[in-house]
Amino acid sequence: MKKSLLSTQPYKGTQDYYPEDMFKRDYLFNIWRETAKEFGYKEYDTPILEDADIYRAKSGDELTNTQLYNFVDKGGREIAIRPEMTPSLARIIAAKYQQLPKPIRWFSIDKFYRYEKPQRGRTREFFQLNIDIFGITQMSAEIEIFKYIDSVMRKLKAPRNTWKVYVNNRYLMDYIFTKVLNLQADQISKVARAIDNYTKISPDEYPEYLSETGLDKLQIGKLIDFLKQDLTYIEKLKGESRGAKELVELFAMCKELGLTSFEFKPYIMRGITYYTGTVIEMFDIGGDKNPRALFGGGRYDDLLEIFGKEKLPAFGIGWGSVTMMNYLETYNLLPEYSEGLNAFITLTPGQNLLESFNLADKLRDEGIKVETQLKEEDLKKQLGTANKRKIRYVFFKSGDKWIAKDMGKGIQSNLNLEDIKGYFVN
Amino acid sequence: MKKSLLSTQPYKGTQDYYPEDMFKRDYLFNIWRETAKEFGYKEYDTPILEDADIYRAKSGDELTNTQLYNFVDKGGREIAIRPEMTPSLARIIAAKYQQLPKPIRWFSIDKFYRYEKPQRGRTREFFQLNIDIFGITQMSAEIEIFKYIDSVMRKLKAPRNTWKVYVNNRYLMDYIFTKVLNLQADQISKVARAIDNYTKISPDEYPEYLSETGLDKLQIGKLIDFLKQDLTYIEKLKGESRGAKELVELFAMCKELGLTSFEFKPYIMRGITYYTGTVIEMFDIGGDKNPRALFGGGRYDDLLEIFGKEKLPAFGIGWGSVTMMNYLETYNLLPEYSEGLNAFITLTPGQNLLESFNLADKLRDEGIKVETQLKEEDLKKQLGTANKRKIRYVFFKSGDKWIAKDMGKGIQSNLNLEDIKGYFVN
Repeated sequence: MKKSLLSTQPYKGTQDYYPEDMFKRDYLFNIWRETAKEFGYKEYDTPILEDADIYRAKSGDELTNTQLYNFVDKGGREIAIRPEMTPSLARIIAAKYQQLPKPIRWFSIDKFYRYEKPQRGRTREFFQLNIDIFGITQMSAEIEIFKYIDSVMRKLKAPRNTWKVYVNNRYLMDYIFTKVLNLQADQISKVARAIDNYTKISPDEYPEYLSETGLDKLQIGKLIDFLKQDLTYIEKLKGESRGAKELVELFAMCKELGLTSFEFKPYIMRGITYYTGTVIEMFDIGGDKNPRALFGGGRYDDLLEIFGKEKLPAFGIGWGSVTMMNYLETYNLLPEYSEGLNAFITLTPGQNLLESFNLADKLRDEGIKVETQLKEEDLKKQLGTANKRKIRYVFFKSGDKWIAKDMGKGIQSNLNLEDIKGYFVN
Repeated sequence: MKKSLLSTQPYKGTQDYYPEDMFKRDYLFNIWRETAKEFGYKEYDTPILEDADIYRAKSGDELTNTQLYNFVDKGGREIAIRPEMTPSLARIIAAKYQQLPKPIRWFSIDKFYRYEKPQRGRTREFFQLNIDIFGITQMSAEIEIFKYIDSVMRKLKAPRNTWKVYVNNRYLMDYIFTKVLNLQADQISKVARAIDNYTKISPDEYPEYLSETGLDKLQIGKLIDFLKQDLTYIEKLKGESRGAKELVELFAMCKELGLTSFEFKPYIMRGITYYTGTVIEMFDIGGDKNPRALFGGGRYDDLLEIFGKEKLPAFGIGWGSVTMMNYLETYNLLPEYSEGLNAFITLTPGQNLLESFNLADKLRDEGIKVETQLKEEDLKKQLGTANKRKIRYVFFKSGDKWIAKDMGKGIQSNLNLEDIKGYFVN
């Protein structure tokens, strides 16, 4: 018998959300959601399951080959649990390409799955905020999303010295690859991956590491030189490279708007293949507890082509919950748990429970969150529990009257049913 | 090339949620959620994926054999996409059985999957509200959930003559099966299924249909007689059957509390095997457009045993989104779509976009939902669009001043940045 018992643990790499966990999750999600709405973004959603092919088209090798939860359904279709939102988003926009007025400003917060080795900052089930703008070629699309990010971080009270968004541009990298390093097409992806690892390898070993991609000494020198550059260098390239021009324009606007947490970094690549121009990643720069990117994003002006539609300029980010919750915990930015209950109605021996239900009705009609005791119990015990749970008001029966006890102030009086709201106006 | 294009359709039996669809979904979900909080219920969540075994233990044959999305992950584990919440809920309660103060009042709203033939009222992906109370043996647990249901239906403005919750009790059925019909253990599940189909088969054909389960004429007569009974009959059985006693007690409370939309129906069975006492189902009784149950639920006092824990009294319902949205549409109970945007900042040729961003900042700091035009365009065109989209205020530049135009009243004046909130106090 004992052997056949089921485990109470969740599936490996996933988490159960008890009310205390939901409270934290909601804190972040509500700020994401409310801020998106303040920016005029509309919420959308897509199914958890998708045709597996939509990830094969452009998502990149690691994601589709080793991390995808794909399987064949009972009808013989090969499907996958979505590992990211962008392909689904591109699909539903392509489906109503003509009808949707541009620009399209949309966001979504939901679950995703990747088959990962569970570790800090990496789980198999995770949430992601996706916020995207379609139909804007100009850098103002980037700026609007930058402002959104800045606004969210301000609401989270994130100290300026603990986060930075690093920005690069794929067109600039194309210029470096083809015009500066004169790479062949088949070398580019290898070198790009090596650049992605720039901060993970010590400066001493990096030249040797780069040589493994087939670069010669001269190329290695030029590349390492480039990876240390800042905006001053990029400024000089703006006549030759579209990417440099876009970066210069973007950072001129950042400067004027006081967006000081956004910085050019030439080694930001992003693994996903569908990106075109701007690419960005946010990092915890306040310590070494959270080395992984807090989010990533970029331009993907060509993605709609996989659904047979014309190009549509697009910029957006996917902001994961796992590293972000780690970040918020690291800097103690999460509020203390509160049940959010306003009132408690006691039940003592001999009392009629139905009267409690009727009183609760009246309170709830006013939007008051109230719990009713369902088992008869000693009054003192119930008052003690309500106190421990930090519930503001307790209502109990004395003779045929309801008494309202303010647990904060310790005062009690006959309940006045005509002015229930009055009790909860601080 | 054309052949290789990907489809823009969602996976069969699932739906994409464009902002207009999300608006409807949110309308229902917000009422579910807010009302649950008013009743002191806390939100929880569990992973989409579970060990497939937890559904084999007690969920019933149809669900586990034909409807389950189960597959083997890349590490060789057999997992399933959850088809219902109750086993996961029982699992996470069992995991913290000792620490959790009783009663436990929890709810959750999230996605589920069943491999179904898509049709009206049945999709492969669906949402479900699950609301459950643990730790209460008495019928007051049922009453609290009944009050919750009644409160939700009132907020949805559902006419009383369009819905009814039908109630039965598994202990009563056990009594009928063993004491009245003298069935053998192996006959019970067949007869139970036949009772489940009572309303789907014409009264003329029903005796013949029952005989296929192996019942003799006398048994068939007794069973059909029972299926037509009301509370008066049950009253007589309360000394002999625990189920009858519970039903009598439950409906006495319903009567006193004015819960008139709850009714005893002896043919309500519920397919799932883990139910113990009370079982309930809600139906659209206003017409024949929605013949499927709007939700189902019941007592499952023994379910924690599959995780090796003691019994814990439990009562709850799973309220699906699909039939419920059909119901709301049938009776025209959904509100008209609104973008929810408060203001729009225009951009005309030569204007500095960065000033728009700065103005938007100030508005958003006050919680105002504002969209900024990113492409230079003719003012008239932008005013027209804002009008069509029913946006209350448009802000535009005239010389070096911002003008605020109230689109509802058609009046405009210099924008007073000191009193931004004043514009939005009706």
